[in-house]
Amino acid sequence: MIFKTPTQYFLVSGASEGYTPLNAFDGALLQAGIGNTNIVKMSSIVPPQCQRISPITFPPGVLVPAAYAALTSDVPGEIISAGVAVALPEDENQNGLIMEYSAKGTRHKIEEIVRNMAAEGMKLRGWKIKDLQTVVSEYRVKRIGATLAAVILWG
Amino acid sequence: MIFKTPTQYFLVSGASEGYTPLNAFDGALLQAGIGNTNIVKMSSIVPPQCQRISPITFPPGVLVPAAYAALTSDVPGEIISAGVAVALPEDENQNGLIMEYSAKGTRHKIEEIVRNMAAEGMKLRGWKIKDLQTVVSEYRVKRIGATLAAVILWG
Amino acid sequence: MIFKTPTQYFLVSGASEGYTPLNAFDGALLQAGIGNTNIVKMSSIVPPQCQRISPITFPPGVLVPAAYAALTSDVPGEIISAGVAVALPEDENQNGLIMEYSAKGTRHKIEEIVRNMAAEGMKLRGWKIKDLQTVVSEYRVKRIGATLAAVILWG
Repeated sequence: MIFKTPTQYFLVSGASEGYTPLNAFDGALLQAGIGNTNIVKMSSIVPPQCQRISPITFPPGVLVPAAYAALTSDVPGEIISAGVAVALPEDENQNGLIMEYSAKGTRHKIEEIVRNMAAEGMKLRGWKIKDLQTVVSEYRVKRIGATLAAVILWG
Repeated sequence: MIFKTPTQYFLVSGASEGYTPLNAFDGALLQAGIGNTNIVKMSSIVPPQCQRISPITFPPGVLVPAAYAALTSDVPGEIISAGVAVALPEDENQNGLIMEYSAKGTRHKIEEIVRNMAAEGMKLRGWKIKDLQTVVSEYRVKRIGATLAAVILWG
Repeated sequence: MIFKTPTQYFLVSGASEGYTPLNAFDGALLQAGIGNTNIVKMSSIVPPQCQRISPITFPPGVLVPAAYAALTSDVPGEIISAGVAVALPEDENQNGLIMEYSAKGTRHKIEEIVRNMAAEGMKLRGWKIKDLQTVVSEYRVKRIGATLAAVILWG
Protein backbone atom coordinates (compact mmCIF):
# COMPACT_ATOMS: atom_id res chain seq x y z
CA MET A 1 0.00 0.00 0.00
CA ILE A 2 1.45 3.32 -1.05
CA PHE A 3 -0.78 5.61 0.93
CA LYS A 4 -2.56 4.93 4.18
CA THR A 5 -6.31 4.91 4.53
CA PRO A 6 -7.62 8.05 6.24
CA THR A 7 -9.47 7.58 9.54
CA GLN A 8 -10.91 11.07 10.16
CA TYR A 9 -12.50 13.81 8.10
CA PHE A 10 -14.02 17.24 8.43
CA LEU A 11 -15.92 19.75 6.31
CA VAL A 12 -14.91 23.38 5.77
CA SER A 13 -15.84 26.27 3.51
CA GLY A 14 -14.67 29.76 2.67
CA ALA A 15 -14.90 32.62 0.20
CA SER A 16 -12.77 35.63 -0.61
CA GLU A 17 -11.91 38.49 -2.92
CA GLY A 18 -8.44 38.46 -4.46
CA TYR A 19 -5.93 40.27 -6.62
CA THR A 20 -6.23 37.40 -9.15
CA PRO A 21 -8.47 34.30 -9.28
CA LEU A 22 -5.68 32.26 -7.63
CA ASN A 23 -5.30 34.88 -4.88
CA ALA A 24 -9.06 34.73 -4.31
CA PHE A 25 -8.83 30.93 -4.11
CA ASP A 26 -5.95 31.30 -1.63
CA GLY A 27 -8.10 33.66 0.42
CA ALA A 28 -10.98 31.19 0.39
CA LEU A 29 -8.62 28.43 1.59
CA LEU A 30 -7.41 30.75 4.38
CA GLN A 31 -10.96 31.55 5.44
CA ALA A 32 -11.68 27.81 5.46
CA GLY A 33 -8.71 27.29 7.78
CA ILE A 34 -6.60 25.33 5.28
CA GLY A 35 -4.73 28.17 3.58
CA ASN A 36 -1.33 27.17 4.92
CA THR A 37 -1.75 23.50 4.05
CA ASN A 38 -0.68 21.60 0.93
CA ILE A 39 -3.92 20.24 -0.48
CA VAL A 40 -3.78 17.26 -2.84
CA LYS A 41 -7.02 16.75 -4.78
CA MET A 42 -8.50 13.28 -4.84
CA SER A 43 -11.68 11.51 -5.89
CA SER A 44 -13.97 11.19 -3.45
CA ILE A 45 -14.47 8.46 -0.90
CA VAL A 46 -14.87 8.48 2.90
CA PRO A 47 -13.43 5.15 4.09
CA PRO A 48 -15.57 2.86 6.30
CA GLN A 49 -15.55 3.88 9.99
CA CYS A 50 -13.86 7.17 9.15
CA GLN A 51 -14.90 9.59 11.92
CA ARG A 52 -16.12 13.12 11.37
CA ILE A 53 -14.22 15.54 13.60
CA SER A 54 -14.27 19.29 14.15
CA PRO A 55 -11.93 21.18 11.83
CA ILE A 56 -8.36 21.09 13.09
CA THR A 57 -5.38 23.31 12.40
CA PHE A 58 -2.63 21.45 10.58
CA PRO A 59 1.07 22.06 10.97
CA PRO A 60 1.92 24.52 8.17
CA GLY A 61 2.86 22.93 4.84
CA VAL A 62 1.70 19.41 5.65
CA LEU A 63 0.33 17.46 2.68
CA VAL A 64 -3.31 16.41 3.09
CA PRO A 65 -5.76 14.85 0.64
CA ALA A 66 -9.04 16.64 0.04
CA ALA A 67 -12.12 16.54 -2.15
CA TYR A 68 -13.36 20.00 -2.95
CA ALA A 69 -15.50 22.21 -5.14
CA ALA A 70 -14.29 25.71 -5.96
CA LEU A 71 -15.28 28.44 -8.36
CA THR A 72 -13.82 31.83 -9.19
CA SER A 73 -15.49 34.70 -11.02
CA ASP A 74 -14.52 38.18 -12.19
CA VAL A 75 -18.09 39.34 -12.83
CA PRO A 76 -18.98 41.98 -10.21
CA GLY A 77 -22.25 41.20 -8.45
CA GLU A 78 -22.35 37.58 -9.58
CA ILE A 79 -23.36 35.06 -6.94
CA ILE A 80 -21.25 31.89 -6.97
CA SER A 81 -21.57 28.86 -4.73
CA ALA A 82 -19.56 25.73 -4.06
CA GLY A 83 -20.74 22.72 -2.12
CA VAL A 84 -19.75 19.26 -1.03
CA ALA A 85 -22.01 16.46 0.19
CA VAL A 86 -20.96 13.40 2.14
CA ALA A 87 -23.35 10.44 2.01
CA LEU A 88 -22.68 7.81 4.66
CA PRO A 89 -24.04 4.26 4.33
CA GLU A 90 -26.23 2.34 6.75
CA ASP A 91 -23.82 -0.57 6.53
CA GLU A 92 -20.70 0.52 8.43
CA ASN A 93 -18.51 -1.82 6.41
CA GLN A 94 -19.21 0.21 3.30
CA ASN A 95 -17.60 3.52 2.45
CA GLY A 96 -19.16 6.93 2.24
CA LEU A 97 -19.25 8.99 -0.94
CA ILE A 98 -18.30 12.63 -1.49
CA MET A 99 -19.79 14.73 -4.26
CA GLU A 100 -18.67 18.23 -5.26
CA TYR A 101 -20.55 20.88 -7.20
CA SER A 102 -20.01 24.56 -7.95
CA ALA A 103 -21.88 26.97 -10.19
CA LYS A 104 -23.38 30.42 -10.46
CA GLY A 105 -26.32 30.49 -8.10
CA THR A 106 -27.38 30.62 -4.50
CA ARG A 107 -26.49 28.35 -1.62
CA HIS A 108 -29.96 26.81 -1.72
CA LYS A 109 -29.71 25.73 -5.36
CA ILE A 110 -26.20 24.32 -5.10
CA GLU A 111 -26.98 22.47 -1.87
CA GLU A 112 -29.99 20.78 -3.44
CA ILE A 113 -27.98 19.65 -6.46
CA VAL A 114 -24.98 18.35 -4.53
CA ARG A 115 -27.24 16.45 -2.09
CA ASN A 116 -29.03 14.83 -5.02
CA MET A 117 -25.67 13.93 -6.57
CA ALA A 118 -24.54 12.14 -3.42
CA ALA A 119 -27.91 10.38 -3.09
CA GLU A 120 -27.70 9.24 -6.74
CA GLY A 121 -24.19 7.91 -6.15
CA MET A 122 -25.36 5.79 -3.23
CA LYS A 123 -28.37 4.59 -5.24
CA LEU A 124 -26.02 3.49 -8.03
CA ARG A 125 -24.14 1.40 -5.46
CA GLY A 126 -27.41 -0.03 -4.12
CA TRP A 127 -26.63 1.29 -0.65
CA LYS A 128 -28.98 2.90 1.87
CA ILE A 129 -28.04 6.31 3.26
CA LYS A 130 -27.65 6.71 7.01
CA ASP A 131 -26.57 10.36 6.98
CA LEU A 132 -26.11 13.10 4.41
CA GLN A 133 -23.81 15.95 5.42
CA THR A 134 -23.24 19.09 3.38
CA VAL A 135 -21.40 22.36 3.49
CA VAL A 136 -21.96 25.11 0.94
CA SER A 137 -20.27 28.47 0.51
CA GLU A 138 -22.13 31.28 -1.27
CA TYR A 139 -20.34 34.45 -2.33
CA ARG A 140 -21.26 37.69 -4.11
CA VAL A 141 -18.30 38.81 -6.22
CA LYS A 142 -17.04 42.37 -5.81
CA ARG A 143 -14.21 42.37 -8.41
CA ILE A 144 -12.57 38.93 -8.42
CA GLY A 145 -13.93 36.32 -6.02
CA ALA A 146 -13.66 32.67 -5.12
CA THR A 147 -15.87 30.27 -3.22
CA LEU A 148 -14.84 26.89 -1.85
CA ALA A 149 -16.24 23.89 0.02
CA ALA A 150 -14.03 20.95 1.00
CA VAL A 151 -13.87 17.61 2.72
CA ILE A 152 -10.47 17.10 4.32
CA LEU A 153 -9.26 13.58 5.05
CA TRP A 154 -6.88 12.88 7.86
CA GLY A 155 -5.70 10.20 10.16
CA MET B 1 11.63 10.48 0.03
CA ILE B 2 8.06 11.53 0.69
CA PHE B 3 6.26 8.93 -1.34
CA LYS B 4 7.35 5.43 -2.18
CA THR B 5 7.98 4.22 -5.70
CA PRO B 6 5.16 1.98 -6.98
CA THR B 7 6.08 -1.61 -7.89
CA GLN B 8 2.89 -2.82 -9.61
CA TYR B 9 0.35 -1.42 -12.04
CA PHE B 10 -2.78 -2.36 -13.91
CA LEU B 11 -5.05 -0.96 -16.62
CA VAL B 12 -8.81 -0.47 -16.31
CA SER B 13 -11.61 1.26 -18.17
CA GLY B 14 -15.27 2.05 -17.75
CA ALA B 15 -18.17 4.17 -18.98
CA SER B 16 -21.52 5.20 -17.57
CA GLU B 17 -24.57 7.42 -17.71
CA GLY B 18 -25.16 9.71 -14.75
CA TYR B 19 -27.45 12.23 -13.13
CA THR B 20 -24.70 14.85 -13.62
CA PRO B 21 -21.28 14.72 -15.35
CA LEU B 22 -19.63 13.93 -11.97
CA ASN B 23 -22.16 11.13 -11.33
CA ALA B 24 -21.38 9.73 -14.78
CA PHE B 25 -17.66 9.89 -13.95
CA ASP B 26 -18.39 8.13 -10.65
CA GLY B 27 -20.28 5.44 -12.57
CA ALA B 28 -17.38 5.01 -14.97
CA LEU B 29 -14.99 4.61 -12.01
CA LEU B 30 -17.34 2.00 -10.51
CA GLN B 31 -17.50 0.08 -13.79
CA ALA B 32 -13.70 0.21 -13.94
CA GLY B 33 -13.56 -1.32 -10.44
CA ILE B 34 -12.08 1.75 -8.74
CA GLY B 35 -15.26 3.61 -7.78
CA ASN B 36 -14.77 3.17 -4.04
CA THR B 37 -11.12 4.21 -4.11
CA ASN B 38 -9.55 7.63 -3.56
CA ILE B 39 -7.75 8.36 -6.82
CA VAL B 40 -4.94 10.92 -6.81
CA LYS B 41 -4.01 12.09 -10.32
CA MET B 42 -0.34 12.08 -11.26
CA SER B 43 1.87 12.52 -14.31
CA SER B 44 2.66 9.65 -15.86
CA ILE B 45 5.55 7.26 -15.35
CA VAL B 46 5.76 3.51 -14.80
CA PRO B 47 8.86 2.96 -12.65
CA PRO B 48 11.55 0.50 -13.83
CA GLN B 49 10.72 -3.16 -13.09
CA CYS B 50 7.15 -2.21 -12.13
CA GLN B 51 5.06 -5.33 -12.82
CA ARG B 52 1.74 -5.38 -14.63
CA ILE B 53 -0.84 -7.27 -12.63
CA SER B 54 -4.51 -8.14 -13.09
CA PRO B 55 -6.84 -5.49 -11.67
CA ILE B 56 -7.28 -5.88 -7.93
CA THR B 57 -9.98 -4.69 -5.57
CA PHE B 58 -8.67 -2.16 -3.10
CA PRO B 59 -9.84 -1.74 0.46
CA PRO B 60 -12.53 0.99 0.24
CA GLY B 61 -11.26 4.54 0.57
CA VAL B 62 -7.57 3.79 0.18
CA LEU B 63 -5.55 6.50 -1.57
CA VAL B 64 -3.91 5.35 -4.81
CA PRO B 65 -2.09 7.28 -7.52
CA ALA B 66 -3.36 6.97 -11.07
CA ALA B 67 -2.86 8.38 -14.55
CA TYR B 68 -6.12 8.59 -16.43
CA ALA B 69 -8.04 10.05 -19.34
CA ALA B 70 -11.72 10.84 -18.88
CA LEU B 71 -14.37 12.72 -20.81
CA THR B 72 -17.98 13.61 -20.10
CA SER B 73 -20.63 14.75 -22.58
CA ASP B 74 -24.26 15.83 -22.42
CA VAL B 75 -24.87 15.53 -26.16
CA PRO B 76 -27.21 12.57 -26.78
CA GLY B 77 -25.84 10.17 -29.37
CA GLU B 78 -22.31 11.53 -29.21
CA ILE B 79 -19.53 8.94 -29.19
CA ILE B 80 -16.76 9.71 -26.71
CA SER B 81 -13.61 7.70 -26.03
CA ALA B 82 -10.82 7.78 -23.48
CA GLY B 83 -7.58 5.86 -23.72
CA VAL B 84 -4.28 5.32 -22.00
CA ALA B 85 -1.11 3.83 -23.46
CA VAL B 86 1.84 2.43 -21.54
CA ALA B 87 5.13 2.25 -23.44
CA LEU B 88 7.73 0.04 -21.77
CA PRO B 89 11.43 0.33 -22.65
CA GLU B 90 13.78 -2.37 -23.89
CA ASP B 91 16.26 -1.36 -21.20
CA GLU B 92 14.77 -2.56 -17.91
CA ASN B 93 16.64 0.09 -15.96
CA GLN B 94 14.62 2.78 -17.69
CA ASN B 95 11.06 3.70 -16.82
CA GLY B 96 7.92 3.28 -18.84
CA LEU B 97 5.78 6.17 -20.00
CA ILE B 98 2.01 6.64 -19.75
CA MET B 99 0.06 8.81 -22.16
CA GLU B 100 -3.62 9.74 -21.83
CA TYR B 101 -6.03 10.97 -24.50
CA SER B 102 -9.76 11.54 -24.69
CA ALA B 103 -11.95 13.08 -27.39
CA LYS B 104 -15.11 12.72 -29.38
CA GLY B 105 -14.63 9.74 -31.65
CA THR B 106 -14.40 5.99 -31.80
CA ARG B 107 -12.20 3.59 -29.94
CA HIS B 108 -10.14 2.99 -33.06
CA LYS B 109 -9.27 6.67 -33.56
CA ILE B 110 -8.42 7.36 -29.91
CA GLU B 111 -6.33 4.19 -29.60
CA GLU B 112 -4.24 5.15 -32.63
CA ILE B 113 -3.57 8.63 -31.27
CA VAL B 114 -2.69 7.56 -27.73
CA ARG B 115 -0.36 4.83 -29.05
CA ASN B 116 1.40 7.39 -31.23
CA MET B 117 1.67 9.74 -28.25
CA ALA B 118 3.40 7.09 -26.14
CA ALA B 119 5.69 6.13 -29.04
CA GLU B 120 6.63 9.80 -29.56
CA GLY B 121 7.40 10.16 -25.86
CA MET B 122 9.80 7.24 -25.98
CA LYS B 123 11.38 8.57 -29.17
CA LEU B 124 11.95 11.92 -27.43
CA ARG B 125 13.85 10.03 -24.71
CA GLY B 126 15.84 8.09 -27.31
CA TRP B 127 14.56 4.80 -25.89
CA LYS B 128 13.47 1.69 -27.80
CA ILE B 129 10.01 0.28 -27.04
CA LYS B 130 9.72 -3.30 -25.83
CA ASP B 131 5.95 -3.32 -25.32
CA LEU B 132 3.07 -0.94 -25.90
CA GLN B 133 -0.08 -1.61 -23.86
CA THR B 134 -3.35 0.24 -24.26
CA VAL B 135 -6.86 0.31 -22.94
CA VAL B 136 -9.60 2.42 -24.49
CA SER B 137 -13.19 2.97 -23.45
CA GLU B 138 -15.76 4.04 -26.09
CA TYR B 139 -19.21 5.23 -25.08
CA ARG B 140 -22.34 6.48 -26.85
CA VAL B 141 -24.01 9.12 -24.69
CA LYS B 142 -27.71 8.73 -23.89
CA ARG B 143 -28.28 11.88 -21.83
CA ILE B 144 -25.15 12.56 -19.74
CA GLY B 145 -22.26 10.13 -20.08
CA ALA B 146 -18.65 9.62 -19.09
CA THR B 147 -15.85 7.45 -20.40
CA LEU B 148 -12.62 6.62 -18.59
CA ALA B 149 -9.35 4.74 -19.04
CA ALA B 150 -6.77 4.53 -16.28
CA VAL B 151 -3.43 3.17 -15.20
CA ILE B 152 -3.40 2.46 -11.48
CA LEU B 153 -0.08 2.30 -9.63
CA TRP B 154 0.34 0.19 -6.57
CA GLY B 155 2.83 -1.66 -4.46
CA MET C 1 -0.60 12.22 9.69
CA ILE C 2 -1.07 10.70 6.27
CA PHE C 3 1.70 12.45 4.40
CA LYS C 4 4.95 13.81 5.73
CA THR C 5 5.91 17.45 5.66
CA PRO C 6 8.50 18.24 2.97
CA THR C 7 11.87 19.63 4.14
CA GLN C 8 13.49 20.65 0.85
CA TYR C 9 12.40 22.31 -2.39
CA PHE C 10 13.75 23.48 -5.71
CA LEU C 11 12.60 25.47 -8.73
CA VAL C 12 12.74 24.25 -12.32
CA SER C 13 11.39 25.26 -15.72
CA GLY C 14 11.21 23.95 -19.25
CA ALA C 15 9.53 24.30 -22.63
CA SER C 16 9.13 22.08 -25.66
CA GLU C 17 7.41 21.32 -28.93
CA GLY C 18 5.40 18.12 -29.12
CA TYR C 19 3.33 15.81 -31.30
CA THR C 20 0.29 16.71 -29.16
CA PRO C 21 -0.20 19.19 -26.26
CA LEU C 22 0.46 16.37 -23.77
CA ASN C 23 3.65 15.39 -25.61
CA ALA C 24 4.77 19.02 -25.51
CA PHE C 25 4.04 19.08 -21.76
CA ASP C 26 6.05 15.85 -21.40
CA GLY C 27 8.92 17.48 -23.30
CA ALA C 28 8.77 20.52 -21.03
CA LEU C 29 8.91 18.25 -17.95
CA LEU C 30 11.92 16.46 -19.47
CA GLN C 31 13.69 19.75 -20.15
CA ALA C 32 12.96 20.76 -16.56
CA GLY C 33 14.59 17.53 -15.35
CA ILE C 34 11.41 15.98 -13.97
CA GLY C 35 10.13 14.15 -17.05
CA ASN C 36 10.64 10.68 -15.60
CA THR C 37 9.04 11.52 -12.27
CA ASN C 38 5.43 11.07 -11.13
CA ILE C 39 4.29 14.58 -10.29
CA VAL C 40 1.30 15.02 -7.97
CA LYS C 41 -0.16 18.53 -8.08
CA MET C 42 -0.77 20.29 -4.79
CA SER C 43 -1.70 23.72 -3.48
CA SER C 44 0.95 25.66 -2.67
CA ILE C 45 2.86 26.02 0.58
CA VAL C 46 6.55 25.82 1.44
CA PRO C 47 6.71 24.51 5.03
CA PRO C 48 8.64 26.48 7.67
CA GLN C 49 12.43 25.86 7.57
CA CYS C 50 12.10 24.04 4.25
CA GLN C 51 15.47 24.47 2.53
CA ARG C 52 15.98 25.46 -1.10
CA ILE C 53 18.35 23.07 -2.82
CA SER C 54 19.76 22.74 -6.32
CA PRO C 55 17.58 20.62 -8.60
CA ILE C 56 18.20 16.91 -8.06
CA THR C 57 17.57 13.90 -10.25
CA PHE C 58 14.97 11.61 -8.75
CA PRO C 59 14.90 7.84 -9.08
CA PRO C 60 12.64 7.22 -12.11
CA GLY C 61 8.93 6.89 -11.31
CA VAL C 62 9.07 8.21 -7.78
CA LEU C 63 5.99 10.16 -6.65
CA VAL C 64 6.73 13.76 -5.69
CA PRO C 65 4.40 16.66 -4.88
CA ALA C 66 4.77 19.83 -6.90
CA ALA C 67 3.14 23.20 -7.47
CA TYR C 68 3.34 24.25 -11.08
CA ALA C 69 2.10 26.51 -13.84
CA ALA C 70 1.94 25.16 -17.38
CA LEU C 71 0.41 26.25 -20.66
CA THR C 72 0.15 24.66 -24.08
CA SER C 73 -0.66 26.35 -27.38
CA ASP C 74 -1.14 25.26 -30.97
CA VAL C 75 -0.93 28.77 -32.42
CA PRO C 76 2.34 29.07 -34.39
CA GLY C 77 4.36 32.11 -33.36
CA GLU C 78 2.47 32.66 -30.12
CA ILE C 79 4.59 33.49 -27.07
CA ILE C 80 3.51 31.67 -23.93
CA SER C 81 5.01 31.90 -20.47
CA ALA C 82 4.59 30.07 -17.17
CA GLY C 83 5.96 31.21 -13.83
CA VAL C 84 6.04 30.35 -10.17
CA ALA C 85 6.94 32.62 -7.27
CA VAL C 86 7.94 31.55 -3.77
CA ALA C 87 7.51 34.16 -1.05
CA LEU C 88 9.35 33.33 2.16
CA PRO C 89 8.43 35.01 5.47
CA GLU C 90 10.68 36.97 7.82
CA ASP C 91 9.41 34.85 10.70
CA GLU C 92 10.97 31.42 10.22
CA ASN C 93 8.14 29.74 12.10
CA GLN C 94 5.73 30.74 9.36
CA ASN C 95 5.43 29.00 6.02
CA GLY C 96 6.27 30.28 2.58
CA LEU C 97 3.69 30.66 -0.17
CA ILE C 98 3.85 29.51 -3.79
CA MET C 99 1.90 31.22 -6.55
CA GLU C 100 1.58 29.98 -10.13
CA TYR C 101 0.63 31.89 -13.27
CA SER C 102 0.66 31.18 -16.99
CA ALA C 103 -0.62 33.15 -19.96
CA LYS C 104 0.14 34.38 -23.42
CA GLY C 105 2.90 36.94 -23.08
CA THR C 106 6.54 37.44 -22.34
CA ARG C 107 8.65 36.34 -19.42
CA HIS C 108 8.77 39.89 -18.12
CA LYS C 109 4.98 40.27 -17.94
CA ILE C 110 4.35 36.88 -16.34
CA GLU C 111 7.15 37.34 -13.80
CA GLU C 112 5.74 40.67 -12.68
CA ILE C 113 2.25 39.21 -12.21
CA VAL C 114 3.32 36.08 -10.35
CA ARG C 115 5.59 38.11 -8.03
CA ASN C 116 2.69 40.42 -7.24
CA MET C 117 0.46 37.41 -6.60
CA ALA C 118 2.91 35.99 -4.05
CA ALA C 119 3.35 39.40 -2.43
CA GLU C 120 -0.44 39.84 -2.17
CA GLY C 121 -0.76 36.39 -0.59
CA MET C 122 1.74 37.30 2.11
CA LYS C 123 0.02 40.65 2.67
CA LEU C 124 -3.29 38.82 3.15
CA ARG C 125 -1.61 36.76 5.89
CA GLY C 126 -0.13 39.91 7.45
CA TRP C 127 3.39 38.51 7.04
CA LYS C 128 6.55 40.35 6.00
CA ILE C 129 8.52 38.94 3.06
CA LYS C 130 12.15 37.98 3.59
CA ASP C 131 12.79 36.64 0.09
CA LEU C 132 10.87 36.33 -3.17
CA GLN C 133 12.13 33.67 -5.60
CA THR C 134 10.80 33.17 -9.10
CA VAL C 135 11.35 31.06 -12.16
CA VAL C 136 9.64 31.76 -15.48
CA SER C 137 9.72 29.89 -18.76
CA GLU C 138 8.96 31.75 -22.01
CA TYR C 139 8.38 29.89 -25.25
CA ARG C 140 7.57 30.78 -28.85
CA VAL C 141 5.34 28.08 -30.33
CA LYS C 142 6.34 26.48 -33.62
CA ARG C 143 3.41 24.09 -34.12
CA ILE C 144 2.35 22.74 -30.72
CA GLY C 145 4.26 23.94 -27.68
CA ALA C 146 4.23 23.85 -23.90
CA THR C 147 5.86 25.94 -21.22
CA LEU C 148 6.24 25.00 -17.57
CA ALA C 149 7.56 26.35 -14.26
CA ALA C 150 7.47 24.27 -11.09
CA VAL C 151 8.33 24.13 -7.42
CA ILE C 152 9.20 20.58 -6.40
CA LEU C 153 8.90 19.57 -2.74
CA TRP C 154 11.06 16.86 -1.30
CA GLY C 155 12.56 15.57 1.86
